Amino acid sequence: MIDLYTWPTPNGRKVSIALEEFELPYRVHSVDLQQRQQFDPDFLRISPNNKIPAIVDQDTDTALMESGAILLYLAKKTDRFWGEDTWQTMQWLMWQMAGLGPMLGQVHFFNKHNPGQSPYAEERFTAEAARLYGVLDARLAGRSYVSGDYSIADMAIWPWISRFEWQDIDLKDYPNICRWYQEIAQRPAVQKGYDVPHYVNPIPMPN
Amino acid sequence: MIDLYTWPTPNGRKVSIALEEFELPYRVHSVDLQQRQQFDPDFLRISPNNKIPAIVDQDTDTALMESGAILLYLAKKTDRFWGEDTWQTMQWLMWQMAGLGPMLGQVHFFNKHNPGQSPYAEERFTAEAARLYGVLDARLAGRSYVSGDYSIADMAIWPWISRFEWQDIDLKDYPNICRWYQEIAQRPAVQKGYDVPHYVNPIPMPN
Repeated sequence: MIDLYTWPTPNGRKVSIALEEFELPYRVHSVDLQQRQQFDPDFLRISPNNKIPAIVDQDTDTALMESGAILLYLAKKTDRFWGEDTWQTMQWLMWQMAGLGPMLGQVHFFNKHNPGQSPYAEERFTAEAARLYGVLDARLAGRSYVSGDYSIADMAIWPWISRFEWQDIDLKDYPNICRWYQEIAQRPAVQKGYDVPHYVNPIPMPN
Repeated sequence: MIDLYTWPTPNGRKVSIALEEFELPYRVHSVDLQQRQQFDPDFLRISPNNKIPAIVDQDTDTALMESGAILLYLAKKTDRFWGEDTWQTMQWLMWQMAGLGPMLGQVHFFNKHNPGQSPYAEERFTAEAARLYGVLDARLAGRSYVSGDYSIADMAIWPWISRFEWQDIDLKDYPNICRWYQEIAQRPAVQKGYDVPHYVNPIPMPN
């Protein structure tokens, strides 16, 4: 049994979607970010960086933070969803962790939550978001998924793209991402994992 | 033989230090960021995100971008530097890739290279840098390294800490990091890898 500590954010949804895809039994624990529950001392013992998601795998007594590490752990545990080539999957998973996630996170912070506080930062991160969408769209040209078969790299990237409306991104400008995004949104595991720990909104769809 | 495409930045130095630590033969190719050589079409074929570092392992015909993926690849290739516990090493490597690196990168951009353009962003990223240094200092309390033995997690983190002067960080405020940083700076592989692809400055030391 896996205990999942999460909240309905892109990083949280990566892991709930993965647990559904891997068909692993898990128990959900809400960590309410609005109530700053990520700073509870009990949670800090599991997640030394005070961030969700985190898991405790009771089968192996393993506590783990960082969504990218958790995705690799689950793929290793089940030997599934490695894509066509492990190292291609790994590099795109890292690209999401180090580039797409942190930069789109800044777009959410500056442009969506604190507009007008820093036009300079808004411009910087909007441009970087467009560049990263361009890189992903090029990668998906002529490919169904990021790394051969549907893999943990897609699971890592998709929840960040699902906030395209917060990012002032028109998915129609990125036809390969648009096609990939809509197809993955049809997966039952994605639909189920999206609503963990609770329902917030329907999965956003391009007009 | 491994071809390394790099420039003397924290992400570049991670991989040159690792290649020295792993004692793997490699050929260095400079990708001059000031001359925007990362946008050369030839480099794009190796690194679809237009960033250094990247490697091509001629033994296995593997091209790889993203420093975190490259560190894992080299550790797997040689079965070395996994630390005491693979998953602890993995989570701290991911913490560097997703948190420490991207956030300190913003401190370099806003505070060091473009001061005064956005006091709001400078304040945000300075505070996040201090928080992340605090997380690392707590992790290193009573530990020699981040994950048991010296590992790829330390190799990923150290080059970012080596720019503490750009980050307005006084290492003396973080005694565990300060001790860890100075000890690792003594390693011959670190001293050699720091100067790849060319010498820029001596390794910065706290006063």
